[in-house]
Amino acid sequence: MVSLNGQDIMLDCGESTQIQMSRYGMRWRHMDHIFISHLHGDHYFGLFGLITTMSLQGRTNPLHLHAPAPLEGLINALLSVAASVLCYEIKFYPLPEAAGLLVDEKFFTVSCFPVEHRIPCYGFLVTEKTRGRKLLPEKCLEYGIPAYFYDRLKKGEDYETKTGEIIKNEWVTLDGPKPSSYAYCADTIYTESFLEYIQGVDIMYHESTYLESDLDKATARFHSTAAQAAAIAKKAGAGQLLLGHYSSRYRELDGFQKEAAAIFPNVQVTVEGITYEV
Amino acid sequence: MVSLNGQDIMLDCGESTQIQMSRYGMRWRHMDHIFISHLHGDHYFGLFGLITTMSLQGRTNPLHLHAPAPLEGLINALLSVAASVLCYEIKFYPLPEAAGLLVDEKFFTVSCFPVEHRIPCYGFLVTEKTRGRKLLPEKCLEYGIPAYFYDRLKKGEDYETKTGEIIKNEWVTLDGPKPSSYAYCADTIYTESFLEYIQGVDIMYHESTYLESDLDKATARFHSTAAQAAAIAKKAGAGQLLLGHYSSRYRELDGFQKEAAAIFPNVQVTVEGITYEV
Repeated sequence: MVSLNGQDIMLDCGESTQIQMSRYGMRWRHMDHIFISHLHGDHYFGLFGLITTMSLQGRTNPLHLHAPAPLEGLINALLSVAASVLCYEIKFYPLPEAAGLLVDEKFFTVSCFPVEHRIPCYGFLVTEKTRGRKLLPEKCLEYGIPAYFYDRLKKGEDYETKTGEIIKNEWVTLDGPKPSSYAYCADTIYTESFLEYIQGVDIMYHESTYLESDLDKATARFHSTAAQAAAIAKKAGAGQLLLGHYSSRYRELDGFQKEAAAIFPNVQVTVEGITYEV
Repeated sequence: MVSLNGQDIMLDCGESTQIQMSRYGMRWRHMDHIFISHLHGDHYFGLFGLITTMSLQGRTNPLHLHAPAPLEGLINALLSVAASVLCYEIKFYPLPEAAGLLVDEKFFTVSCFPVEHRIPCYGFLVTEKTRGRKLLPEKCLEYGIPAYFYDRLKKGEDYETKTGEIIKNEWVTLDGPKPSSYAYCADTIYTESFLEYIQGVDIMYHESTYLESDLDKATARFHSTAAQAAAIAKKAGAGQLLLGHYSSRYRELDGFQKEAAAIFPNVQVTVEGITYEV
């Protein structure tokens, strides 16, 4: 779940998601978008229960579901055998084959990019929108700029006085806060094919199902190692790397931290129930 | 899960079943039969994850799945979009429309009977097979009955000596232990239509989604109250009643115990993670 500016965005929905949400006090009230990377069960088997529960609990606002095309038919089939109709609308958007913009909301955008897995699979990039330049109120008063023009100052415009004098934008504003971005790279074999979409991202999640000692397994199963995830983070110039999706063969996660940090020091070995600040 | 004589039988499989199994140290190694009562999600959304995990963990013995007919197509569709093939066989048996025997194993049988819910729904009766009459070894020796005839004694036969003398079965045996039985009555509105199938059952589970104060809701939604479950247990001459499937509107379960016990005293308000002995 990515939370920004009061809105929650769900990226993939494994079995028990609704139970985990309840355990960690997370609500669906401000969640209007769910994105599903691919149709392996560990990434969407929790969706059926979640959408049903939201209906039982009386959701009314539409849910925007962005997922591989076949999911729409599966959901309809499950509702049909249950003779159930949801009490809210699911707006389904099949993911495009190529990279592209999926959502353009007031405070953020979400786009997708293909990664390389055994079946079609996508990563997602969540980008906060700029809130504009930061006004210097004293300078604005000093130059006599009227309040109605402030929004245009935030967008970077210069002000022209009635006498034709130009007040340069940079005299009365500062750079606004840099918009944050988060990339979710889903399940993928090592590939640099999506680097262009995530250059300079603040935080990126990249799967690390295996350690380098099991590189052969990673490659055979279209998964990555911790070292490979770190290499991608480094090439992307990411601010921070989050690892996850560890194979159950590993009892300890220390190896993941160690292996990745040797290549990309600012790495976190994620575990469930933890919030990471962008 | 019903465990008997080293075999485990699963009755319904809600979301997170595989996670709960792991939490409570339950294994699928001796589980060859799963029964699904009906296709509302809270009764089968855990099946997809469970069958996938069993494959990942290398199950080889076939799994016998007894469920409403449409489930077979749903499972195939989910496997197909994942481009997955299970490494063991699922033998699918659609539930018959009427009551009938589903499984006849060495130590038990399982049969189904229709209950009344918003969509087709079935209860299940698990019956231990009799292990036959109990031999009195000293008496057998005294009457000179040869060992090869012992199995026939267990089945209740008399023994005829070479001289034509009849040794009555009851002289050399006692009644064997009474076989146990368990009825799972799934989701149902109050109905006496299935009483004939569960007469004299040792333990019966009957849903009690509501209390009598919400009888109108129970009826409208094809569910039962605790009092109704108790009435069925009484009419069935059951040994013990297990309640479950409580609506989330109730914060406390004391009311269920109280309401049912007034009609049928030997009642248990079941909670997750507890084992009940038959």
